[in-house]
Amino acid sequence: MNKKLFTPGPLNTSASVKEEMLQDLGSRDIEFINVVKDVRNSILRLGNVSKEDGYECVIIQGSGTFGVESVFCSVIGSDDLVLNIINGHYGKRISKICDIHKINHIDLIFEENEYPDIELIEQTLMDNKGITHLSIVHCETTTGIINPIENISNICKENNLIFILDSMSIFGAIDINIKDLKIDYLISSSNKCVEGVPGFSFVIANKQQLLKTKGLARSLSLDLYSQWEGLERDGQFRFTPPIQVILAFKKALEELANEGGPLARGLRYKENANIILKEMKELGFESYLSEDKSSYIINTFYYPNHPNFNFKEFYNRLNDKGYVIYPGKLSERDTFRIGNIGKLYRKDMYQLVEAIKVVLDEMEINLK
Amino acid sequence: MNKKLFTPGPLNTSASVKEEMLQDLGSRDIEFINVVKDVRNSILRLGNVSKEDGYECVIIQGSGTFGVESVFCSVIGSDDLVLNIINGHYGKRISKICDIHKINHIDLIFEENEYPDIELIEQTLMDNKGITHLSIVHCETTTGIINPIENISNICKENNLIFILDSMSIFGAIDINIKDLKIDYLISSSNKCVEGVPGFSFVIANKQQLLKTKGLARSLSLDLYSQWEGLERDGQFRFTPPIQVILAFKKALEELANEGGPLARGLRYKENANIILKEMKELGFESYLSEDKSSYIINTFYYPNHPNFNFKEFYNRLNDKGYVIYPGKLSERDTFRIGNIGKLYRKDMYQLVEAIKVVLDEMEINLK
Repeated sequence: MNKKLFTPGPLNTSASVKEEMLQDLGSRDIEFINVVKDVRNSILRLGNVSKEDGYECVIIQGSGTFGVESVFCSVIGSDDLVLNIINGHYGKRISKICDIHKINHIDLIFEENEYPDIELIEQTLMDNKGITHLSIVHCETTTGIINPIENISNICKENNLIFILDSMSIFGAIDINIKDLKIDYLISSSNKCVEGVPGFSFVIANKQQLLKTKGLARSLSLDLYSQWEGLERDGQFRFTPPIQVILAFKKALEELANEGGPLARGLRYKENANIILKEMKELGFESYLSEDKSSYIINTFYYPNHPNFNFKEFYNRLNDKGYVIYPGKLSERDTFRIGNIGKLYRKDMYQLVEAIKVVLDEMEINLK
Repeated sequence: MNKKLFTPGPLNTSASVKEEMLQDLGSRDIEFINVVKDVRNSILRLGNVSKEDGYECVIIQGSGTFGVESVFCSVIGSDDLVLNIINGHYGKRISKICDIHKINHIDLIFEENEYPDIELIEQTLMDNKGITHLSIVHCETTTGIINPIENISNICKENNLIFILDSMSIFGAIDINIKDLKIDYLISSSNKCVEGVPGFSFVIANKQQLLKTKGLARSLSLDLYSQWEGLERDGQFRFTPPIQVILAFKKALEELANEGGPLARGLRYKENANIILKEMKELGFESYLSEDKSSYIINTFYYPNHPNFNFKEFYNRLNDKGYVIYPGKLSERDTFRIGNIGKLYRKDMYQLVEAIKVVLDEMEINLK
């Protein structure tokens, strides 16, 4: 059964994207080298920048976390100090990466359903003159909250900070101008809003900054500078790339362009999200984020307060019908999540709602 | 054009292996969890061990090097000392990984066309009583040489050393008993002799040793112990796995079993290698390794001493005809390589030889 994935990715990809994987190509073959070049340039375009603007795209094998770790273990020197703005699980993961690599860092931790407090960030910068880098997660998959990166960008500009944006779960479905926002390192992955299959992450780097990081890396595989240098030298990866996954991604990028680019894709996801938020509310479910902060990538719902509700059963019954939802990740309250991304359209969202209605009936749960 | 890859991997995989990638599956879905469990157990079987024997399989996202780095940065403590036996490029890469992670190490470097000198290794162990770990590359892709790991195993047993075997390019095409050889960590990857597509590496670990390494890792993504612990806890990866690549690998494992297992596959590769070695010699090419050391994974040939020979042209002309060979990696002499692995059979090898004859004619090269 081909299930519909209402998850934050890996997600449903198009058949044509997957069909690109039906070939074997040599990793050092000119044909593949050209694919890689094309993919790297197309990724830059999604951020409204190019090599000519001074930006570089580096592909890192592995998952999104490999890309995040690659940036942190490669671009922050031993005398540097990074300020991590955290309002969810993925922000905490960045802090953990800093701990492991003994990177000097200050964590500002905010409520998971609130935007970071700008005044507190500014105060922290005043109190800690040594801060050189700032990191934030763009869209926290924990809750779906989309952080206001324009404000954060302004703070980085005013304080001359190197700006690291973990844009994993939203890049490709948002119109973002990396140059205007002066983002120095943006990280995302193959299996998110570009709608490719999982296997690599990518970094868009400000070349001027990247050039200063030679020799800083605390890892061989995750050495961002060396990976970039290798790709620039002969177009080849230092170490075996996931060839078929990259071929699929090239097709996914073409399909994203055909859909109208990140803005158009974002609109489709927004329509999906609006349907889910409205229909779930009607069924009696309560959204974790307040309406003004609600997300179009993924939405978090509280477990309903009903004696018959059991998430595992709810999940399995939906799964058996071909609808895969996602567990929650909050510490304080029990929640589950429904993703709006991937090859999902209006009708898929309504079908999910119908399936949820049937499952609630089966479980004898009436929330109204 | 579907090219034939005479490379050390990524290599030609079967159509049925690639077709497994035509589906989307949730990374936390029970269906995928069962696939991962099955794959991990099957990998152990290729090494003639099982969980019951005290061995564990850990899958690491990324390329083979990610797996090697994962082991080195995760299992060697700050007071430990590793002896690296090196006779090629991939041995040197291990030394580099040790440098980057500030792992205490002694490198014994031998000629690339010679087996490591056992007496010298024993002498080094006598002179350095603090050595705790020993590493060697099983089959050095640099030349194809297959190192005599039985002797190395005996040394490890006698000296109570933790034995790390980089078996990247030969595992799956050799009958190996991990328990008898007392190998503590064996590393290979998805796109080598099991004939899957690239995207992950895997480690077979002696559980007793692995359990002692908790908290040692110098990386989050490449933390071997935590990766294992995560897989054991709920069958899920800590971070997004390359789902389609793993689905393909499951099929590749089944096809390897159907072929008769590693021994049978090794025999097919040996037949391939024998054809190439004999026919290339007849054409006037000279093999880098002496006949007694010649490999069945990949073979290295000197550039012929002929004024018309130009490797780039030779390579491109073969490539245009659909045959992809591989450049050399030796420092002292110019060489190229021909791989025998992947979905290659007698007829493919003879076809390559015919294509080489045509290209030599086109380039007006007669070596006889």
